[in-house]
Amino acid sequence: MRVRKKPWAEGYIKTHSDLITTNPAEHLGHWQERFATVQPLQIEIGIGKGQFIVEMARQHPEINFLGIEIQESVIAVALRKLVESGLNNVQLVETDGANVDTLFAPGEVDQLFLNFSDPWPKTRHAKRRLTAPGFLGHYANVLKPAGKIQFKTDNRGLFEYSLASFNNTGLIFDEVWLDLHHSDGNVGNVQTEYEEKFSQKGPIYELIAHFPQS
Amino acid sequence: MRVRKKPWAEGYIKTHSDLITTNPAEHLGHWQERFATVQPLQIEIGIGKGQFIVEMARQHPEINFLGIEIQESVIAVALRKLVESGLNNVQLVETDGANVDTLFAPGEVDQLFLNFSDPWPKTRHAKRRLTAPGFLGHYANVLKPAGKIQFKTDNRGLFEYSLASFNNTGLIFDEVWLDLHHSDGNVGNVQTEYEEKFSQKGPIYELIAHFPQS
Repeated sequence: MRVRKKPWAEGYIKTHSDLITTNPAEHLGHWQERFATVQPLQIEIGIGKGQFIVEMARQHPEINFLGIEIQESVIAVALRKLVESGLNNVQLVETDGANVDTLFAPGEVDQLFLNFSDPWPKTRHAKRRLTAPGFLGHYANVLKPAGKIQFKTDNRGLFEYSLASFNNTGLIFDEVWLDLHHSDGNVGNVQTEYEEKFSQKGPIYELIAHFPQS
Repeated sequence: MRVRKKPWAEGYIKTHSDLITTNPAEHLGHWQERFATVQPLQIEIGIGKGQFIVEMARQHPEINFLGIEIQESVIAVALRKLVESGLNNVQLVETDGANVDTLFAPGEVDQLFLNFSDPWPKTRHAKRRLTAPGFLGHYANVLKPAGKIQFKTDNRGLFEYSLASFNNTGLIFDEVWLDLHHSDGNVGNVQTEYEEKFSQKGPIYELIAHFPQS
């Protein structure tokens, strides 16, 4: 998502260092300290404007949510939503989600969400897709055994690629939805801003999977 | 597919015993003897009126095709197509494809096609779907190591189920197409009668996968 630079973003982020960090390295292995309660940790890579993670946190007070987003002008909007919500089970991180393996200790994460990730449609950019085998290997490192990955997209090519990539990397499929908004799978589905806008134009795909316990 | 009984079918099948058998048990382990040339053997379970297998055979003279269909009035139409084609690399079998493991010796089959199989939409009938784990286990027995299964359907629920079933059974995905008729994957796609009729109404899904070499 490309967005116009927001002049207020940098200052706003600085004044809310209790809810957002731009220095994740110092929290590696002890993210739970940033939350009011120690409870399962679920992360979203690429939160955009934060509607999904804030609504998930509202519905699941028994879970800690950590949202990662690289674009300052976007995560600042998510931060504003979070501030207005008054929730204490969401933390934000302004950093590149592609480096997820350097942000968490092994097994520190209970579940991982990828929502409408950049499709990188050109074959020569396939390795940049957040569902490429290289990234899946990183997720395996930071997820607890049997920790799930939940992936949604409206991009057919990315979903075709990802089904094969997840399978070829040894992930075990729990659920597959090929038109989530016209399925039983839609029960409890929390939408992103993007999803609200684009689900009228075609199917939303979803895959939930986990790594085998080795 | 339910069809009206064709009074001519039984007699027609009997007079073409060089192209079709109703007694597959006697050919188990030596199907190649029914063909003009010993070459790779690919089978289709549920050939319907035979358009797919006859056209595949026309395009691939270097392969022997064997088509299985349980309904006499349907396979008789396929047989008529085959007779008219003059091809010598297709054989038909009138029997229940669900018993595939009793029709072939281990490793006798190079590749297996499932086209628009009965979706059995009720959950309590899931085991009857030809992509259920039980059937996949049978296919593993009759396929050569790394032999592929190619599965097409227009039924979203069946394809969702099958993606998970193939994955959970340990198959390795080679290709996934979520809208075959509007994809690069359509190059070389041979259509069934059903596919020609129903591809206008929604996407055709395809999965190509193989068992790992143990």
